[in-house]
Amino acid sequence: SPSNPPKKMLRHVVLFKFKDSATPAQVKEVEDAFRKLPSKIKEVKGFEWGTNNSPEGLAQGFTHVFFVSFDSEAGREVYLPHPEHKAFVKVLEPHLDKVLVVDYWTQE
Amino acid sequence: SPSNPPKKMLRHVVLFKFKDSATPAQVKEVEDAFRKLPSKIKEVKGFEWGTNNSPEGLAQGFTHVFFVSFDSEAGREVYLPHPEHKAFVKVLEPHLDKVLVVDYWTQE
Repeated sequence: SPSNPPKKMLRHVVLFKFKDSATPAQVKEVEDAFRKLPSKIKEVKGFEWGTNNSPEGLAQGFTHVFFVSFDSEAGREVYLPHPEHKAFVKVLEPHLDKVLVVDYWTQE
Repeated sequence: SPSNPPKKMLRHVVLFKFKDSATPAQVKEVEDAFRKLPSKIKEVKGFEWGTNNSPEGLAQGFTHVFFVSFDSEAGREVYLPHPEHKAFVKVLEPHLDKVLVVDYWTQE
């Protein structure tokens, strides 16, 4: 591996499938709410997201991926019960059909 | 967003749940085979992986996350049918219980 291996990060990968009843405006409201979290919770060190475009048909109905990075497990421990995260979940819940979450420490 | 926004990448997120019958050595064989793919397929521009440690209990049995990056959809189109990728799938298949794949273009 490279002489200076990339810094190990703790990734938090969140997949959403929205209810069929969720309107585009409601989906956007959830997207925008999630996108604001990094500016409200300083333990979030990285953030990106996107919508599924895999041609393989193995997404099991999940359409949205949010990819959040921490530099410690302590950071994740602040994030999960954080009031701003809880407020986000309140925005999400009425429109959510399925959620899947996997976290991992980066390896090469 | 920053004056020079990060370069948009096409992420390919692959989750595996292995069969209960898969031995640690067999799981490691699959991990090592996947880890070698970036050196064999030049269209792969980024790669990291890890095993799930989420405390939320929402992983639906998935234990492994492989996070592959391309800089174009053309790169993905070379990767998916590539002989080295197919050879990897042959190593994986006997031990695989479940797979989930979502791809997305990075957004902020």
